[in-house]
Order: sequence, then C-alpha cells, then structure tokens
Amino acid sequence: MTRVFNFSAGPAVLPEEVLAQAKEEMLDWRGSGMSVMEMSHRGKEFMSIAEQADADLRELMGIPANYKVLFLQGGASLQFAMVPMNLLRGKAGADYVNTGAWSKKAISEAKRYGKVNVAATTEANKFTSAPAQAELALDPAAAYVHYTPNETIGGVEFPYVPETDDVPLVADMSSTILSRPVDVSRYGLIYAGAQKNIGPAGLTVVIVREDLVTEQVVDGTPVMLRYATHVPDGSMYNTPPTYAWYLAGLVFQWLKKKGGLAGMAEINRRKAERLYAAIDGSPFYKNPVEPSCRSWMNVPFTLANPDLDATFLAEAKKAGLVTLKGHRSVGGMRASIYNAMPEEGVQALIDFMADFEKRNG
Amino acid sequence: MTRVFNFSAGPAVLPEEVLAQAKEEMLDWRGSGMSVMEMSHRGKEFMSIAEQADADLRELMGIPANYKVLFLQGGASLQFAMVPMNLLRGKAGADYVNTGAWSKKAISEAKRYGKVNVAATTEANKFTSAPAQAELALDPAAAYVHYTPNETIGGVEFPYVPETDDVPLVADMSSTILSRPVDVSRYGLIYAGAQKNIGPAGLTVVIVREDLVTEQVVDGTPVMLRYATHVPDGSMYNTPPTYAWYLAGLVFQWLKKKGGLAGMAEINRRKAERLYAAIDGSPFYKNPVEPSCRSWMNVPFTLANPDLDATFLAEAKKAGLVTLKGHRSVGGMRASIYNAMPEEGVQALIDFMADFEKRNG
Repeated sequence: MTRVFNFSAGPAVLPEEVLAQAKEEMLDWRGSGMSVMEMSHRGKEFMSIAEQADADLRELMGIPANYKVLFLQGGASLQFAMVPMNLLRGKAGADYVNTGAWSKKAISEAKRYGKVNVAATTEANKFTSAPAQAELALDPAAAYVHYTPNETIGGVEFPYVPETDDVPLVADMSSTILSRPVDVSRYGLIYAGAQKNIGPAGLTVVIVREDLVTEQVVDGTPVMLRYATHVPDGSMYNTPPTYAWYLAGLVFQWLKKKGGLAGMAEINRRKAERLYAAIDGSPFYKNPVEPSCRSWMNVPFTLANPDLDATFLAEAKKAGLVTLKGHRSVGGMRASIYNAMPEEGVQALIDFMADFEKRNG
Repeated sequence: MTRVFNFSAGPAVLPEEVLAQAKEEMLDWRGSGMSVMEMSHRGKEFMSIAEQADADLRELMGIPANYKVLFLQGGASLQFAMVPMNLLRGKAGADYVNTGAWSKKAISEAKRYGKVNVAATTEANKFTSAPAQAELALDPAAAYVHYTPNETIGGVEFPYVPETDDVPLVADMSSTILSRPVDVSRYGLIYAGAQKNIGPAGLTVVIVREDLVTEQVVDGTPVMLRYATHVPDGSMYNTPPTYAWYLAGLVFQWLKKKGGLAGMAEINRRKAERLYAAIDGSPFYKNPVEPSCRSWMNVPFTLANPDLDATFLAEAKKAGLVTLKGHRSVGGMRASIYNAMPEEGVQALIDFMADFEKRNG
C-alpha cells in the first residue's frame, strides 16, 4: 500500500492514524460485536462515542458552557438557509461580508428570508483580500453579521475577528475550524462542514450560543431546519450521521495527541509559510492574495505559463501529489493543506515544484 | 472477534462481507492511495463509485429511465418537508394515509405547507393493520398521496400498493426498500433513509419521476431542499455524504450476488414466517398486528408477563442477541430483521425464545 499526498479541498486527507483505527474497529468496536455504523444511535455504545466527541471538541476549542454543539447534516450549504431562518428572529435583515464564492452563496440564500446588507465586499480586487475592520459598514439593527473567515476557493483568510458589538457574529468556518485556537465567545454561531478539518463529508458541526436558539423562526421553516429541534435532543431528533460523528471523534482525539489547536497552529503556520515562500521565491509561480490575508489551509497558485498546467498536474500525480487542480473560477493549482496534511507532504510538493521549474523554467 | 446478532431498527446490521471490504479498502481504495472518504467528490475515482452505485440500484429495483435517483442527506425526517415543498406545485393539499408513528410525523410536517386530507387512519385499532384500498378516501384534486408502506415502530406493512389513478403516489420506504421487488412505475416518488436496508445513517435515497421535479416550490424553500437543485448536478450541488454513498454501493453489489431483490424476498419471507410462527405458536409471546399486514422487516412482540421483559433482554444480550428492546410507545420487544440479518440470526432468536419460555413459562 502506498498512500499519496492528497491536496483535495474537501473531502480531504484524514490522519492516517485515524483511518487505521477505524479500519481496526470496522467489524467490532471494542468488543461490542458491532461496527459503529451498525449501532443504534440511542444505545449506550454510540451514546458514549457521541458524548466523548462533544466533550473533546469542547476541550479543544474551549467552548464556553453557554454554547451548544450540534452534529447535523446538510453541509454549510444548508446552514446558508438555517442561519437566517433561525437567527433573523423578527428583525428585517442581517449584515453579510462578501469575500468570495462561499460568501456569495450564503448571501444569495439569506436574501430569501430577509434584507441583506453587504457590509463590505472585496469583489473589486477579485477577492484577493479581506476587508479591514474600518471598512465594515455594519448596521447596529442587523440580526447578525455573517462572514467567511476562510474562503476555500480564493484562499483568503481574515487576519482578525470582526468586532460587531452586541450584534451576534456568525462564521462559516468550514475550511479553517480547528486549524488554530479561536475565541468562541466572540461568536454567536459557528458552523462548519466536516469534510475539511473535522472528518468525512455528511456531517456539519454547529456551535451556537444558547440564547440564539429560539422558536422564533421564519414561517415555514421545517422542523429539521430549526436549531431548537436539535438542541434538546442532543442532535438526535432523528438518526444522526453516526459513523461520521465517530470519525470526527477520532480526529478530535488525534488533535489532542498533537498538542491541541495551539500545537496544530504552529505546524500549520510552518507548512503555509514554507509553501508561500516557495511560491514567492520564484517568478515561475504566483499567488494573488494579499500576504496578510493568505489562507493557512488553501493555497491557490498559478504557473507563469498556463500552458504547462496539464503537465504540472500529470507529473505531480506521478510523484504521488494528487488533487492539485485549482477551482475552475480561479484556474491554476490549489494545494489544500489541512491539519491532516503532514509537513512531509508540503515539503514533497515544494521539492516537486522546484524540480518542475528547473525542467520547465 | 465475535460478531453479535443485532436486531436494531436502525442504524442496523450491515452485511459482514460489506464491512470486511470496507475495512480492506479503508486506507487505500484500489490502488488510489486514498480512503474513499478522502476523495474529492468530483474526482474520477469517486465519480466511478457514485455512478456504479446509481447503476446498481437502478438494476436492482428496475428503475425506469424517466426516474432520477438522488443521494441526499437529512433522513426521512427532512423528506417530510421536502415532499410537500416540492410536490404541492400550487395545489391546495395532499392525501396522507395514517398508519402509525412515522405517518404522523409526515402529516405534521406537511401541514405547514398545505391542507392535509387524512385519506384513512388505523388509529382506532392502535395501528395494527393497514387500511384496505376501498377504505382510502382519496381526493382526485390532491397534489399527491403519501403513505408509509412499512411502519418501523408498529411493524405494520401494506400488503398492496395503493391505486391512486393520476395522482402521484409518494412512499416513505425507509424500512422496506430493497426487501423485495417493487414496481417503481407505480410511484411518483420513493424516499428512504439509508440506515436500515441501504447502508449507514446520513444518506437518504430519493427516487423521483422526472416530471415531478419542477421549480414550482413553496415560497421560501431553501435551495438545498429543492429536488430541482440536486437533479441536474447528480446529487453534487454540494458535497454529498461520499462514504455513505460508497457503502450503499457495496450493499447493492452484495444484493446482486444474493440474487437481487427476488432472492432477498424469498429469504426475507422465510425469516419473517419462521419468527411469526414462533410467536404465534406460544401463548408466552404475542404480536398484535393483523396477520396479512405483518412487516417482514420489523417484528414487535410482547411477553405475556411484562415483568420478565428486563430479564429477557439481559439474557438475550448474553446470548449475543442485541438491541431487542421495543420502542417505548409499543413496549415489549422488537426484532428488526432487515436484509443483512442472516437466517441463522433469526433462528438463534427463535431458539433463545423457546428456551427462555421453557425456563420462565
């Protein structure tokens, strides 16, 4: 068996130790005689798995006691609707910061349910930066402020947490959650599709301040799309995605062994700095993002000569470096270097890039 | 390793061969160097898995070409909202047949979006039968007719497919899909949570006649809750639950090896007949359901002396027969004997029941 270095933006690489443990436990979880995916979600075996995952995530992120953690389905794309449906609470609208493709989708969905005030947009510079705090035209009457701390496609990351006074801050953290410590108390609600830094696709983690979980939802909101449905039932109003929840729990355990989020932050900073240094160090490669806003997780880059793109990708694949093609809206390459991408993987990419340049530069 | 016989109603037992293959392929799917759960859903490896699963399900169920198969999230509980949101198409309401707990949840959710005509209910006999065709008070102007072919909690199954003329028939097949052949052309839409006969929790299969997929949805329907969003994108509008989809595909392959749905029907009929015969053959055990409507998949039964329930469950567990506790609303026991429950498992339960009776009767 030869494992590749997989730079997919999501679903993405998982820690090899996690996969090995899942493999080991596949037919018989700790003497239960069952696979985790065969267990009743209400049985004591799965309940223990679910509770451990919740506790470990709380410990890793330092989640305050007045926040609930939900393990849901539907991805960030469903949260784009659930957030306004649940958080407008009779107010006219909300503030949205537009920093790229995922912000836009969130905005488009929110418009069905209320007035969207675009508090700032970086469309003029083709989404290659995040707006500064002073550039945010926030409405004090907004129901909430929504932003995307890391844009997976553009590779743009906020270098700060927006200050929104008493207005709850909502963040789509899909591609940055768990990459470093975060002060959860700054947020009203955090959501993240699992398939980048948490676990497999099909699980969505929502962290919500309990006072924001109310019955005051937009008319016609399905019972499944109400946070108030899932909170009292511990995310078990209906059958949750149990196996994905279990795998997320294994990832949380792995993160704790790696030194928690402070430990991951050090590693992630080092990986990103090395890769950006390699890109900046040569006219052969280019990343368009303002240096202070460069993502630690998603690193898009182009070749000076795009005619070489296909060759680059084919040769990279032969070298065991896969899923490097950039998003069609940006072109070029994208290396997603989430928590589970080892430093050796980033070094292998850097070495390959240098070698490719030597042969084609 | 000792595997138990797991009678859980869902998530439920999976074929051991399927779990063994998933284990084998966990860190490296067919030389790709990746786990299936690490693959980009848009890459050629996962696309081949997804397409094979779609083709195999079509072959198994004989799905006509004018039906689309969707691999979604959210479970049957989310379909309870998606069905009216998408299928009312400007009509005032729909017909619902009420045969128990799951019908009731579907009805309650549908009432948010239109008028619900309860075409028949078996509440008077405590949901121990299905209504006959002649008892269905169908409204020819209904947008659709919804029913629950198999009630997982009550253990009641329709012995026929309702005739609804030109009104589309919608079925929550969560706990009966794939248990025997079915004439898909009789239905407008079929949906099923995966965690019984298809695969792990977190995947929902929807089979929909293409003329019912329209843009005419209830106001405020989120983009993620529109069938018209998922059909053109092959269930990849956003990241689908890839690993669950893969496992469903392995189950479909296993079913083909077992002789397809005709083969499964023979086995399932045999398993159910044996278990009901054991229950009916003794005054010690009782199943309340009208014999013609007894479920092949979920077999609830009570002990004549409910004081023995706890002992029964504890001793059964020691004998490797687990998750037999009945739903709290029905009491007693429930043996769910889905496709993946081997005949030996049912025989082991019957033997245990006889022995328990001998010692306690």
